[in-house]
Amino acid sequence: MYSLEMEKADGRRLSLYSRRPIDGNIPPSLLEAPAGVNPHLRWHPLRGEWVTYAAFRQTRTFHPPPEYNPFSPSASLDNPTELPVGDYDIAVFDNRFPALTRLAHDPPKSLVDTLPAKGQCEVVVFTQDPNSALGQLPLDHIDLLLQVWGRRTEILAMRDDVLYVLPFENRGAEVGVTLHHPHGQIYAYPFIPPIPQLMQANEASYFKQEGSPLLQDLIEMEVESRERLLYLGPQAVAFIPAWARYPYEVWVAPIKAVPAFSVLAEEQRIDLARALKTVLLKYDGLWQKPFPYLMAWYQSPLDGEPHPEAHLHAEFYPPYRTADRLKYLAGTELAAGMFANDALPEEKAKDLQAVEVVL
Amino acid sequence: MYSLEMEKADGRRLSLYSRRPIDGNIPPSLLEAPAGVNPHLRWHPLRGEWVTYAAFRQTRTFHPPPEYNPFSPSASLDNPTELPVGDYDIAVFDNRFPALTRLAHDPPKSLVDTLPAKGQCEVVVFTQDPNSALGQLPLDHIDLLLQVWGRRTEILAMRDDVLYVLPFENRGAEVGVTLHHPHGQIYAYPFIPPIPQLMQANEASYFKQEGSPLLQDLIEMEVESRERLLYLGPQAVAFIPAWARYPYEVWVAPIKAVPAFSVLAEEQRIDLARALKTVLLKYDGLWQKPFPYLMAWYQSPLDGEPHPEAHLHAEFYPPYRTADRLKYLAGTELAAGMFANDALPEEKAKDLQAVEVVL
Repeated sequence: MYSLEMEKADGRRLSLYSRRPIDGNIPPSLLEAPAGVNPHLRWHPLRGEWVTYAAFRQTRTFHPPPEYNPFSPSASLDNPTELPVGDYDIAVFDNRFPALTRLAHDPPKSLVDTLPAKGQCEVVVFTQDPNSALGQLPLDHIDLLLQVWGRRTEILAMRDDVLYVLPFENRGAEVGVTLHHPHGQIYAYPFIPPIPQLMQANEASYFKQEGSPLLQDLIEMEVESRERLLYLGPQAVAFIPAWARYPYEVWVAPIKAVPAFSVLAEEQRIDLARALKTVLLKYDGLWQKPFPYLMAWYQSPLDGEPHPEAHLHAEFYPPYRTADRLKYLAGTELAAGMFANDALPEEKAKDLQAVEVVL
Repeated sequence: MYSLEMEKADGRRLSLYSRRPIDGNIPPSLLEAPAGVNPHLRWHPLRGEWVTYAAFRQTRTFHPPPEYNPFSPSASLDNPTELPVGDYDIAVFDNRFPALTRLAHDPPKSLVDTLPAKGQCEVVVFTQDPNSALGQLPLDHIDLLLQVWGRRTEILAMRDDVLYVLPFENRGAEVGVTLHHPHGQIYAYPFIPPIPQLMQANEASYFKQEGSPLLQDLIEMEVESRERLLYLGPQAVAFIPAWARYPYEVWVAPIKAVPAFSVLAEEQRIDLARALKTVLLKYDGLWQKPFPYLMAWYQSPLDGEPHPEAHLHAEFYPPYRTADRLKYLAGTELAAGMFANDALPEEKAKDLQAVEVVL
């Protein structure tokens, strides 16, 4: 992996990554962030969790035309974008409208506790091609992305205002995405967020009792059953879990527990890229159209403790339950926290197993 | 409150409620549920929560035309619906496609724990008028609904497969509702679901330390500040909480902590109906169109323990952040559990405070 680090005129970081050496003369890109970016956290007393308030996001001064693509490389001041012109594969930069940022300061007083919304929000542009998709990229390009997620996690982990790093991709208008250039995001949280914390607690309690990582044991059973498997390689696996909350929910993971991207062995990472690409191609092949989803990658917390129970993996939450019907999260999911799934994981797995893909 | 209990031909319960005496000769309605209703629960090991699988919901044999309204009263076998013809205000009946039901039995084996999905799913039709809305009903009709929610909770609480009762309403196509006749649902869970459990734990821990109910103390501060208040009566209050996760999130509650509908004093209940109606009219008045939302009413768990910390209240989660922009739940909300709110509660409260309503 080759990389080039630079700083934009507004102080935001920009990192370029490539499978080939990068020309060091690439100038940083020109689009600038608005002033006054200062999100804050408030404590939700009944849920016992932080909520972030980024009200400046509504007062954006920059109103681009609908066809404007800020992720298209540009060297022109007339058409400033986030990305410079040059030969590179992946770009990472600080979000212009971050919900979390190291720059947060002086939170307002409230009747609940408040804090500056420290941490970081990064944008990860997967490719310079606006019409591509993550699943369409070559395997070594996807492998580069896994390395980039690892590098970003390592860099963010060095900061004392970062306790958890979550790379994710929202894909498709159905999940609110208006900008279709292939990209994801990285949220670096100043605390361990509620869901990773819950998962970590359950994994730790299982590890203490059984002496092995929970997800690794579950994967062993999924591999043995084969009923819901979508990919099985020497090092990585993809499957609809027996406990899926969404009809087309898929998990992708190394077979053996590894706590984070940065400690994957090369052969694990390469097989993980194959598992990931297989799932993405099966999704798009299912109804012969781009398949929307939320993809989140869970790693171990960065609290300085050892986490032998942690098992790096992706969870996909697709909004469709059939080709033309969305699954809405409503009363029982959002208010009670119990998911109701209209489909058996075994049946949805058959749908995806039947989609043939060529990597 | 007057009521009439009956049983449909397929064994489902139907209860009619009215402000006036009900003619005892109303025959039960004619629409029958499909056979084979048998949902089951599976344990999600990483989250430590139950997921319910109701796969029969996809194989419905009854395909009504789009204009068909199953909540319209009918006495004709050619046009069977859920509701009988007669003079009554509110009807409650067992959902034809329940995610939870007392009839659940013999769950399939899986590599995770499974259980029959006991409990109950009820539909609550708020009025016979398909073109009305909850907020348009007269105050004494809304007050009747609060009594009905209390009665249903009491009836369901007597069952040994019910530990929590959640009345809610999903309103609007934006939250997935395809049937616009005013109605809500009641889910009776065989366990305390994750979110009520979390809230109860935080409330109990506060109560133990401070000797007073958490939400009651927070409401006292909201009333004192007035900044986010939408309604303040002698017994009830409505406000956007300082810790709102959604831009137009509103909470409605009695001022003094009461654990459940059934123990509200009459003057509390009547003022709570006024608070609720005020919010609903402000919502619809804001953009002069029906305002979609999820409304959930939290009560105390039914685990046989005393719950002096519990405080009956409604939380509204509206999907819009501006008149034409939806707030999508994406990476940080669904995968991490940290909500990002683009709006300050104080500003959104001003929007709703400015809407004048006549009860």
